[in-house]
Amino acid sequence: MNPASTAARRRHDPAARQFASDNYAGVHPEVLAAIALANEGHQVSYGEDVYTEHLQVLMADLFGPGVEAFPVFNGTGANVVGLQALTDRWGAVICAATAHINVDEGGAPERMGGLKLHTVATPDGKLTPELVDRHAWGFDDEHRAMPQVVSITQSTELGTLYTPDEVRALADHAHGLGMRLHLDGARLANAAAALAVPVRAFTADAGVDVLSFGATKNGALGGEAVVVLNPDGVTHLKHLRKLSMQLASKMRFVSVQFEALLADGLWLRLAGHANAMAQRLAAGAREVDGVEILYPVQANGVFARLPHDVSRRLMERHRFYFWDEAAGDVRWMCSFDTTEDDVDAFLAALREEMGRA
Amino acid sequence: MNPASTAARRRHDPAARQFASDNYAGVHPEVLAAIALANEGHQVSYGEDVYTEHLQVLMADLFGPGVEAFPVFNGTGANVVGLQALTDRWGAVICAATAHINVDEGGAPERMGGLKLHTVATPDGKLTPELVDRHAWGFDDEHRAMPQVVSITQSTELGTLYTPDEVRALADHAHGLGMRLHLDGARLANAAAALAVPVRAFTADAGVDVLSFGATKNGALGGEAVVVLNPDGVTHLKHLRKLSMQLASKMRFVSVQFEALLADGLWLRLAGHANAMAQRLAAGAREVDGVEILYPVQANGVFARLPHDVSRRLMERHRFYFWDEAAGDVRWMCSFDTTEDDVDAFLAALREEMGRA
Amino acid sequence: MNPASTAARRRHDPAARQFASDNYAGVHPEVLAAIALANEGHQVSYGEDVYTEHLQVLMADLFGPGVEAFPVFNGTGANVVGLQALTDRWGAVICAATAHINVDEGGAPERMGGLKLHTVATPDGKLTPELVDRHAWGFDDEHRAMPQVVSITQSTELGTLYTPDEVRALADHAHGLGMRLHLDGARLANAAAALAVPVRAFTADAGVDVLSFGATKNGALGGEAVVVLNPDGVTHLKHLRKLSMQLASKMRFVSVQFEALLADGLWLRLAGHANAMAQRLAAGAREVDGVEILYPVQANGVFARLPHDVSRRLMERHRFYFWDEAAGDVRWMCSFDTTEDDVDAFLAALREEMGRA
Amino acid sequence: MNPASTAARRRHDPAARQFASDNYAGVHPEVLAAIALANEGHQVSYGEDVYTEHLQVLMADLFGPGVEAFPVFNGTGANVVGLQALTDRWGAVICAATAHINVDEGGAPERMGGLKLHTVATPDGKLTPELVDRHAWGFDDEHRAMPQVVSITQSTELGTLYTPDEVRALADHAHGLGMRLHLDGARLANAAAALAVPVRAFTADAGVDVLSFGATKNGALGGEAVVVLNPDGVTHLKHLRKLSMQLASKMRFVSVQFEALLADGLWLRLAGHANAMAQRLAAGAREVDGVEILYPVQANGVFARLPHDVSRRLMERHRFYFWDEAAGDVRWMCSFDTTEDDVDAFLAALREEMGRA
Repeated sequence: MNPASTAARRRHDPAARQFASDNYAGVHPEVLAAIALANEGHQVSYGEDVYTEHLQVLMADLFGPGVEAFPVFNGTGANVVGLQALTDRWGAVICAATAHINVDEGGAPERMGGLKLHTVATPDGKLTPELVDRHAWGFDDEHRAMPQVVSITQSTELGTLYTPDEVRALADHAHGLGMRLHLDGARLANAAAALAVPVRAFTADAGVDVLSFGATKNGALGGEAVVVLNPDGVTHLKHLRKLSMQLASKMRFVSVQFEALLADGLWLRLAGHANAMAQRLAAGAREVDGVEILYPVQANGVFARLPHDVSRRLMERHRFYFWDEAAGDVRWMCSFDTTEDDVDAFLAALREEMGRA
Repeated sequence: MNPASTAARRRHDPAARQFASDNYAGVHPEVLAAIALANEGHQVSYGEDVYTEHLQVLMADLFGPGVEAFPVFNGTGANVVGLQALTDRWGAVICAATAHINVDEGGAPERMGGLKLHTVATPDGKLTPELVDRHAWGFDDEHRAMPQVVSITQSTELGTLYTPDEVRALADHAHGLGMRLHLDGARLANAAAALAVPVRAFTADAGVDVLSFGATKNGALGGEAVVVLNPDGVTHLKHLRKLSMQLASKMRFVSVQFEALLADGLWLRLAGHANAMAQRLAAGAREVDGVEILYPVQANGVFARLPHDVSRRLMERHRFYFWDEAAGDVRWMCSFDTTEDDVDAFLAALREEMGRA
Repeated sequence: MNPASTAARRRHDPAARQFASDNYAGVHPEVLAAIALANEGHQVSYGEDVYTEHLQVLMADLFGPGVEAFPVFNGTGANVVGLQALTDRWGAVICAATAHINVDEGGAPERMGGLKLHTVATPDGKLTPELVDRHAWGFDDEHRAMPQVVSITQSTELGTLYTPDEVRALADHAHGLGMRLHLDGARLANAAAALAVPVRAFTADAGVDVLSFGATKNGALGGEAVVVLNPDGVTHLKHLRKLSMQLASKMRFVSVQFEALLADGLWLRLAGHANAMAQRLAAGAREVDGVEILYPVQANGVFARLPHDVSRRLMERHRFYFWDEAAGDVRWMCSFDTTEDDVDAFLAALREEMGRA
Repeated sequence: MNPASTAARRRHDPAARQFASDNYAGVHPEVLAAIALANEGHQVSYGEDVYTEHLQVLMADLFGPGVEAFPVFNGTGANVVGLQALTDRWGAVICAATAHINVDEGGAPERMGGLKLHTVATPDGKLTPELVDRHAWGFDDEHRAMPQVVSITQSTELGTLYTPDEVRALADHAHGLGMRLHLDGARLANAAAALAVPVRAFTADAGVDVLSFGATKNGALGGEAVVVLNPDGVTHLKHLRKLSMQLASKMRFVSVQFEALLADGLWLRLAGHANAMAQRLAAGAREVDGVEILYPVQANGVFARLPHDVSRRLMERHRFYFWDEAAGDVRWMCSFDTTEDDVDAFLAALREEMGRA
């Protein structure tokens, strides 16, 4: 495509990359090409197009027959739609205190979904059956918002991973209590790449009922999907998606992004690369005196503790965010387009600034 | 762009077009080119990118200084965010019974926005001060959801238009009552093209306080914007957008679509073309015995009444929807990519099927 | 009871009565006596008391075996709890435009219940199957809030009544469409007294699924009940009541009010008296030149049209409200404690003020 | 009052009392007498009656000039109305994890109020400025529900108390952050009686902005009030009360209960008695080997840890609830009508059952 064909102008430096967020990255060229491919002519809007139809085949390949995928706009939307589908009006969701649904969605689950969150502190962003039990009680007590769903994030907000067995244990525990298991997979690809097992091994096969499948952070222009792995009792997702303002009119352009990513394992390659860059970054940072890596680095995020003034100076050179400013914790994210040179340059800057500390 | 560069496949006929919805159309090539141009490298997510920053300049050019634009995903989202910004928790919105917010948003305004709609029947989808007065009372009565906003659609859901004077009369009336004027501009471009006046003449200059600016139906891939024309008392749009699940992470790709459309008046040319096709369609249909055109054809929609069985047969050849099936009313929409040949073929089919009636 | 036993003071004229609202009246002495009787000692809170238990027996006597009653605080609460029980998150309610849920509940059904109301104009506050059909469509269309409930009011907000056959026709129609029938019975007693049939004839036996049973307007201190006549698919009312802030801790004092009213038909005698006073008032008013009685007077409300200035002067002597001030319509309500002398004095004042017109 | 005057029947043992909840108790005779006194004749409904008017005077006497009281039905309602008044649509509330709004309101704050709760673990149910700071950040970050209110409970859900200085420190801290201080005073009387200072010393004078004033647990039939101590920025409480389904039609009967309780300090005598009974109970229980009293007993609740089987057997003799069944923690509440003999009999039973342990 020739950018000169538009009156719009390039206004940014296409070579600049940061460690602030995997959302800072752009679109993988194959995704953009797929969008162009789905263009021209008319397709039925609101999801009755052939690309969304084909997406069902692709999802069945990934997760097994009978699954259904509902493309939506963003991760918050995917979570709120999926959680509504799993709860009654009186339902509540047990989640880690660090869960995206608790800390990063502006209260959308509560305000838009009418959900109550029962939150529990975790050492590493991961729930366990024991932690779930802190809140899994009082099912018949109308004073208590009824726990109906356990929601986990994979990979977690702290860059850690559940093994397939850990997910299965949570699913069994939840199901044994009459609850459902929801998985926020904003970084599902990073988990699949890191675990090096088929994605269904830690989702459908492990008992997850509904998940949010994120594409945006992994090379898409924008798009997520609510994937119903276990349709028992989950109905009217289409209605929930619409009333939750998550129904795309020209859905073909969301669905075809998934097609491009899933073709030939592109999604796993992109996520695997981001994960590898995080490993390189963590390995380098661990060698810098005074820098502490906080959690196991299992996906594409690295959490570190370093002197506050060092972080501040470093941020002027490479944009990233504090995770817990009071504690001096920062988050460094790698993306599908992060290069080894990017990492090395960042590490060099880190060493320099630490040297001045 | 070479579609062969992706593993995704073209699955549709790029030459097929319908009269069902302007959402059936795809993306204008210049919009796609602009997206490619904004790609590569990193940009701050969630709206702090240079494209979204530049969008503010473009919007100020259109609507005047001091306006602020908040890109969102879709029209329902734009309306619900904008209306929340204009109302207190106890607020209500006066709108036409045919308004999109009342009939086509799955109850999102009520369920997600916590809004009460006071609806009023209209002959042509247009409110008037007199119609507003049916509901503009009881401001101090806590039993009554307090009317705080008048919401109009331009062009309307029935393909009709407000003149700048009509908008001004509504704005003055609303303001005189202490209310605000909201404009659902999902088809703002069609109105601007049809009225042949600067868009600000029937928005900012006419007293509109907040509007939804639609791009999706006019050649965008997907994107709308909440535009705050009058910032008095309108705050925290960013928070409302986020909690309403309408915050795009890679917002540069939404904003640059507007840039492409606004450059060199592309948005007006595209909408003007769609409007012209509607005129051609209406003119042709009026000549067919037994076909009644229902409202003034002022934008890109044509509403017609014809025998039910004719509609059914015609739908098998060209997809479109009933508007009021019981009454035999149908809706034909023209898009930026509708061709004269499309219209003429459709009219030929209409004549044929009417001939069999 | 000796008022001297309290340090509180009587601050009002116990002989003054108005025609403004049946909520202006106080508590029937037998209701107050029953409250005293239920006092002393401890009873399990939140509805596990013996009075609420016994209420189930009384309700079964009235409506048939298998019904369940859930006492709540007020009519808006009863409606919003009952309607939530009958709808999914995507559900909507078809009701008359004049329905209390639409015009007098401050938007609580929408804001608190997350409900969409599809409203329809009626000549007399009453729905018919034909009027229901204006909105009973689009069940599979996610863009449309799904009609799941028809809600009627008996007696209506305009003082009119549904016959048992009319209710049955609506129930059959609703059920045939897969919908449910809800009845707002804030003035159920007035309807039962006026129709002179067992209350179940126009409720349980006529196909009503859930109703709001009002006591407050008929001699109670304060209390309503959500009565589930048809438990199919209606669950967790207790949870809905609690989360809707309608769960009384000392519920025995709500339940025993119903017991007092239902004992020996007191509720029907009180409502029948109020109805009779409305008849007397309407008969007298009809004889006054220039006064028009607007709807059939079938319960305890009289709606009249008279010159605006006459209403204003009359309001200074006897408090009542405009119903539609622009039209000159007023509402006169009779209560369980309205006397013949009250009516006659009011009519005399009406004649006087009309004479000055 | 002669109970024989009603057809209702006494169905319970008026001499039986439990330690399960202060909501198990009935109505103080003076409250009942006051209700009778406010009866008869007509009073304007929905709060324009003379008793509600007079309540404003009484509240000003208690809290200072300029306060405004809004009677509501119950504690959950009072909290949700008050918190809505203190928050924008994007607001959040910082509270103790043990707060009633978090654990005992069925999710009403989230679902009905659209509120996000930021919860923090506490050792004794009490917040401190340091604990508030765990969540008091990110005010400008749209991803984070904006902390706008600190909500404390006085006396707390664990039977502990804030000193006036502690409240003042929280108020100063909250105000310094641009936040407000809300106080859930479901047991405000117990706090006032225990602290032996004027109630305004730890409310209005200590910087509380809005509080819930509970009467139900302290001898009322049923009634609470939202009291606005600091009207800055708090408007339209009447609308919020109505749309939250908390508007009593015959409000005179709620307001006069407050009048009876506030007259001659009855409310403080009743609460002081309940507190004294809790002291007697705690003192006696402390002497029983194997019984651990868990928190400072400062109001009318006693929390104890004892062997699970002992609790079970004891519950068969005297009804009470587990607080944390897994831990073996129970809660014993004293009421205005708890007698010394009740306490002594309970202690005797406790000793007996512990002896069998």
